[in-house]
Amino acid sequence: MTDPAGLARTLVEGDHAALSRAISWVENQSPGFDQLLRELFPRTGRGHRIGVTGPPGAGKSTLTQALARAWRTAGHTVGVVAVDPTSPVSGGALLGDRIRMTGVALDPGVYIRSMATRGALGGLALSTREVCDVLDAAGFDRILVETVGVGQAELDVVAAADTVVLVLTPESGDGIQTLKAGLMEVADIFVVNKADRPLADRLAREIEAALQMRHPETREVGPVLLTVATDGSGVSALVEAVDRHRAGLAQSGELLARRRRRLAEQTRRVVERTVLQWAGPALVDGAVEEGRLEVESGQATPYDIAERVLQRLRR
Amino acid sequence: MTDPAGLARTLVEGDHAALSRAISWVENQSPGFDQLLRELFPRTGRGHRIGVTGPPGAGKSTLTQALARAWRTAGHTVGVVAVDPTSPVSGGALLGDRIRMTGVALDPGVYIRSMATRGALGGLALSTREVCDVLDAAGFDRILVETVGVGQAELDVVAAADTVVLVLTPESGDGIQTLKAGLMEVADIFVVNKADRPLADRLAREIEAALQMRHPETREVGPVLLTVATDGSGVSALVEAVDRHRAGLAQSGELLARRRRRLAEQTRRVVERTVLQWAGPALVDGAVEEGRLEVESGQATPYDIAERVLQRLRR
Repeated sequence: MTDPAGLARTLVEGDHAALSRAISWVENQSPGFDQLLRELFPRTGRGHRIGVTGPPGAGKSTLTQALARAWRTAGHTVGVVAVDPTSPVSGGALLGDRIRMTGVALDPGVYIRSMATRGALGGLALSTREVCDVLDAAGFDRILVETVGVGQAELDVVAAADTVVLVLTPESGDGIQTLKAGLMEVADIFVVNKADRPLADRLAREIEAALQMRHPETREVGPVLLTVATDGSGVSALVEAVDRHRAGLAQSGELLARRRRRLAEQTRRVVERTVLQWAGPALVDGAVEEGRLEVESGQATPYDIAERVLQRLRR
Repeated sequence: MTDPAGLARTLVEGDHAALSRAISWVENQSPGFDQLLRELFPRTGRGHRIGVTGPPGAGKSTLTQALARAWRTAGHTVGVVAVDPTSPVSGGALLGDRIRMTGVALDPGVYIRSMATRGALGGLALSTREVCDVLDAAGFDRILVETVGVGQAELDVVAAADTVVLVLTPESGDGIQTLKAGLMEVADIFVVNKADRPLADRLAREIEAALQMRHPETREVGPVLLTVATDGSGVSALVEAVDRHRAGLAQSGELLARRRRRLAEQTRRVVERTVLQWAGPALVDGAVEEGRLEVESGQATPYDIAERVLQRLRR
């Protein structure tokens, strides 16, 4: 096992190989990963975390790439985490992203990583957050988290960002009526991408009307932005809106309030995961394996197996 | 606390009030709920569980209602669980469903329930499955589980069904290219709803072409069905396809194989939840609450708090 403190030091000095190693360690939850995160934790809290979500086909990847380029041009370093909870392939699958993000992949000021840790103990949202913590500790100025879909797991993932960008297209279903509850509420900035297509303006107006119906106590959001990610139209306005959003949060004290809520949530999830890790995997896996036939044959219920685990824990 | 064995008996005799009480007990994870599930478990495994999923606006609720009516007409009893992981309102919120499902709500052979247990220990998929176990033990012939969206959490929920129906509309984004990975794989039956609109046939052909590209070892699926849920067109063909799917699973032995995989998964989740329940909530909540300020002020990391919980557990 590598020394967590040593790796943490190398990583903070800007070594990309160390960064890759640290992220794999955390993503795979290999022994000692929580010790590494403990070392890195005091260095987190500086990077601006931006969640990019929206339905499949909305152009999120292209937009994320355009944002990364724009921030690089402005002199900022950028980390990108592409989260796909449905993919069976995990972190190592960088090739696809490298090809996809050719415009930026050879730039040392950009680091791109895909994540697909479906079965991660503690859940995908916690794992993603911890990978972002590593990037944050490594000094990246902007950390973009892009999801594939817009389900509950993806919402949980982006909800940990400082700024959430919701990307839609004129063709997104039947307009905003089809947006899931929760999606409008979590979004800070609304983007209608592929805005060169028909009905883009109508969708933008629909979203604005829906936003006005919010209760006044709901946090203020800017106007709906129109982009064409493929040719860069509207991207600089989006960059400005994202930067301004964070500045506004910082000024109002809301940035601190949000981060506090998220720290409490992160603490709870880390505690739960640690308890499960402690109880198992030997004990939990062993009991599940041992009880499998009994449950299948109807001799025992899952609740009997759980009781058996508890009895062993109590010993 | 009610007596779990007594409630289980009343419920099995077909008492709807007992059923509602049992479901609330299980959904809220109130003390003794696992004892109730243990009582009911031996009576599960008879009902046919059907998951209905698809993007918002695809007409899943209308289609679910049409399916419920068709099965009732054929003399079967039907339980419906509508799962909305994003809604802050939980099980009690039956009024909306009653209104929505007026066509069937006064029929004692139909039981409708909505679920939104976001923070449920063990996760929404386990909670939904346990509510289905209650309906199964209560003797319902068909148990329909309908999700609001198509994210990972929703996929997890429907993946526990014997038969998964994926509902799309001609307007669903840019066609099947926009389907999330995992969605095509989990679906057994494909429906293009609102098939009276343009491009329905094209989408059906696209889906069929995509299905043909599957590896030959992938389970066989029927043709893509066209429905207009609002006027009932195509519903009887869908009912037939769903019934035939289950009969095919039973004949090939795949029904048993699927159920075995799901029992192992359920056992694992029940064990994990039980361990967490045992460790807390007093201990876990207490430590998180106690450590919150330390984490916020940077005196401790979430990993320190988790370590503290472990030290107490070890005592």
